[in-house]
Amino acid sequence: MATDFRLKEQLPEITDRLMDTYQAIGTINHLGHCPLPSVEAVIDVVLDLNEILFPGYRRRQSLHMGNVQYFVGDLLDSLHDRLTQQVARALRHAYRRKTGTTCDDAQTPDFEAVGQEKTLAFLSALPRLRELLASDVQAAYDGDPAAGSLDEIIFCYPGLEAITVYRLAHELLQLDVPYIPRMMTEWAHRRTGVDIHPGASIGPSFFIDHGTGVVIGATCEIARNVKLYQGVTLGALSFPRDEDTGQLVRNQKRHPTIEENVVVYANATILGGDTTIGANSVIGASVSLTRSVPPNTVVTIEKPSLRFREAS
Amino acid sequence: MATDFRLKEQLPEITDRLMDTYQAIGTINHLGHCPLPSVEAVIDVVLDLNEILFPGYRRRQSLHMGNVQYFVGDLLDSLHDRLTQQVARALRHAYRRKTGTTCDDAQTPDFEAVGQEKTLAFLSALPRLRELLASDVQAAYDGDPAAGSLDEIIFCYPGLEAITVYRLAHELLQLDVPYIPRMMTEWAHRRTGVDIHPGASIGPSFFIDHGTGVVIGATCEIARNVKLYQGVTLGALSFPRDEDTGQLVRNQKRHPTIEENVVVYANATILGGDTTIGANSVIGASVSLTRSVPPNTVVTIEKPSLRFREAS
Amino acid sequence: MATDFRLKEQLPEITDRLMDTYQAIGTINHLGHCPLPSVEAVIDVVLDLNEILFPGYRRRQSLHMGNVQYFVGDLLDSLHDRLTQQVARALRHAYRRKTGTTCDDAQTPDFEAVGQEKTLAFLSALPRLRELLASDVQAAYDGDPAAGSLDEIIFCYPGLEAITVYRLAHELLQLDVPYIPRMMTEWAHRRTGVDIHPGASIGPSFFIDHGTGVVIGATCEIARNVKLYQGVTLGALSFPRDEDTGQLVRNQKRHPTIEENVVVYANATILGGDTTIGANSVIGASVSLTRSVPPNTVVTIEKPSLRFREAS
Repeated sequence: MATDFRLKEQLPEITDRLMDTYQAIGTINHLGHCPLPSVEAVIDVVLDLNEILFPGYRRRQSLHMGNVQYFVGDLLDSLHDRLTQQVARALRHAYRRKTGTTCDDAQTPDFEAVGQEKTLAFLSALPRLRELLASDVQAAYDGDPAAGSLDEIIFCYPGLEAITVYRLAHELLQLDVPYIPRMMTEWAHRRTGVDIHPGASIGPSFFIDHGTGVVIGATCEIARNVKLYQGVTLGALSFPRDEDTGQLVRNQKRHPTIEENVVVYANATILGGDTTIGANSVIGASVSLTRSVPPNTVVTIEKPSLRFREAS
Repeated sequence: MATDFRLKEQLPEITDRLMDTYQAIGTINHLGHCPLPSVEAVIDVVLDLNEILFPGYRRRQSLHMGNVQYFVGDLLDSLHDRLTQQVARALRHAYRRKTGTTCDDAQTPDFEAVGQEKTLAFLSALPRLRELLASDVQAAYDGDPAAGSLDEIIFCYPGLEAITVYRLAHELLQLDVPYIPRMMTEWAHRRTGVDIHPGASIGPSFFIDHGTGVVIGATCEIARNVKLYQGVTLGALSFPRDEDTGQLVRNQKRHPTIEENVVVYANATILGGDTTIGANSVIGASVSLTRSVPPNTVVTIEKPSLRFREAS
Repeated sequence: MATDFRLKEQLPEITDRLMDTYQAIGTINHLGHCPLPSVEAVIDVVLDLNEILFPGYRRRQSLHMGNVQYFVGDLLDSLHDRLTQQVARALRHAYRRKTGTTCDDAQTPDFEAVGQEKTLAFLSALPRLRELLASDVQAAYDGDPAAGSLDEIIFCYPGLEAITVYRLAHELLQLDVPYIPRMMTEWAHRRTGVDIHPGASIGPSFFIDHGTGVVIGATCEIARNVKLYQGVTLGALSFPRDEDTGQLVRNQKRHPTIEENVVVYANATILGGDTTIGANSVIGASVSLTRSVPPNTVVTIEKPSLRFREAS
């Protein structure tokens, strides 16, 4: 019934074969003295940023006007140090990937200094982000008859969570921080089923209801006061490849533009970088679009051809 | 390479600007001496309720007939205290929102006493919920050829997890507990991709297969022995606004009625408060419905018009 | 304001009623001296396997060629012991279900020994799985213009996470380990929205973009270099029931075959065990298929009949 220790002697041999693959298949391991940014550390930063953005609603309880300044001041200090470290790691790794330099190379720029600057610029944007997020919470209340109060939305709407993380990540991406913005949005994707690329550009008063399955591509442009339902894809139509190299062309507008006050109902699919949905338009559930729609237009599926027969 | 401490001196200024927003944008912070209910505490309650509903299958191992009574008795005692506290907080906050009173106002009702009563009524429903859940587990086994055993369903089917949390949350909502029911179902939504509003009414032997993307609205009525697949939406058609105020009308039946023995296949969408799917009917994959279907009917997409061409 | 202890005296009565249901509804509790496999322990195993498959990218930082062998050797040793225990529990429970024997029955096979053998065979497959996973990471980079680097994919693509867990679970299922493979893939399903049954057979260079809502059934066969987008279902058409017993037939090919180099765009649905998508074919967004498609074919929805009207 006990462990057979002779059998366990196979383990060193398995370890050796794994070592061989770390040499042979180096693309999926990182073994070196320069640490990578850590997904876990980035998630902790996002959780703490939520404490500052929505104080009283998240993990820390019993905040009031007499203690919130100490709490926020202290947390900002800690966030500054931790995020600076992660940003510096991300910058260094991206630099090394581009230049092929090693970690010990003394010629590398002072990534800690650059990381600190970018981190401060990012933290400095938090008051402005709070204004945007207040508009998003209000948009959710105005757009959802099931919402009993603003509180309910802040406590538990997954769409708000995804938008919050997107707004943070977008800010970092604007500051040319590599890796970390996507780590943030993919964490939110995991938690909410809403996949917003940090590169997308999204105006105030944005509401996503239910949210599971929503995909918003990297080059989307979404104006103010837009509402999306679950399963909506704002995606790419096809990917041109470079004629010479056969590689995908990685920097051009591939995703649609959504003008203000547009509503897109569940599971609709809107594709293509030249596709624009005009202001005040409504796209019905399950509609597939690959071309533009003028302003003030309602698009629905033509009376769908369904077949009815008696159950056998 | 080290932190530039002069740059760090920007942090107090950022803190001050955040303080200003806590005054200016008060809708998304809660700063006061009355604590809100805590999402984390509510999740812990749900996890512990799962221990009682499915003993032996969750975190606590090695339960047997000789110790399970001590385990359950002790856990119920602790659940009683923790849930009472959360319910009392929720009741007080909802009352304050409605009346505009402050936390220190001595005239407020004794929310701890009301919270305790509601908590006891809720815990008292657990034996009945176990009967319902046993019917749901059996329905999953009867409806899924990939299920090897009841055990497999209890261990890991996300549909069962979502239904379990819904049944708990629905019970609390019936007792007029604010906030907490939705915290529970949105936590399950996060974990499973299945978004069931605690207001929905759902009969026994309910099965959701795969589940990701399912949305069941607040005023749905679902009879016994219904089966749903991934991506099914039971949603609202449109939201009437009050003629005088322009505000959404928040209390009327907006979502469909599904009669007994109905099956709805993947990604079908059924919308509207007047839409009823009659007993024993089958709704095919990707069908969109906004009107009622009589009993014993199979609805499928008419031979879809697809276009086939050779790949270039 | 304090707890009413007389009310609390209802708790023993609730406990007693729960005890009654543990007797009356025994299908959803496990009370006995033989512990079940633990979902939590299995998840820990998967997290640790990820450390070995992608060293440097996950939780453990600062691995380099000088310490990675100690780290991996030590972790493999611990994984061997923990997984052996879980596999033994799973085997014993499945055996007891089949034979109706009790835990104390001395005649049961030596499940620890069998568990150890299977665990070693599984761990021995890890170097090979690393090769497969390297091909999957490369396929993601080659197929997604939004991917800036291989690093970004390894750090945060949910599709890669789901495929990694599937490849581990499939290996265990091939070794006839019950329960645990599905625990693994349903955990990945929870985290990523991608539901791959461990029974599916999937070739190298597999890429799932965005991923939320993807369902891949137990008897799917997918060749090399296939790409799927979010919301794709590779599912069953209907479930034959045994003519004599009325029970579902649980072991036959119910899910499609996808040949090499096929791309399936968002929310397409392909159903049925006899359905084969021929090599190099492209299935467009939202297409529903229940019959085979020859190689080198592009299938799209015929110019969809949409209705455009002006917004009122």
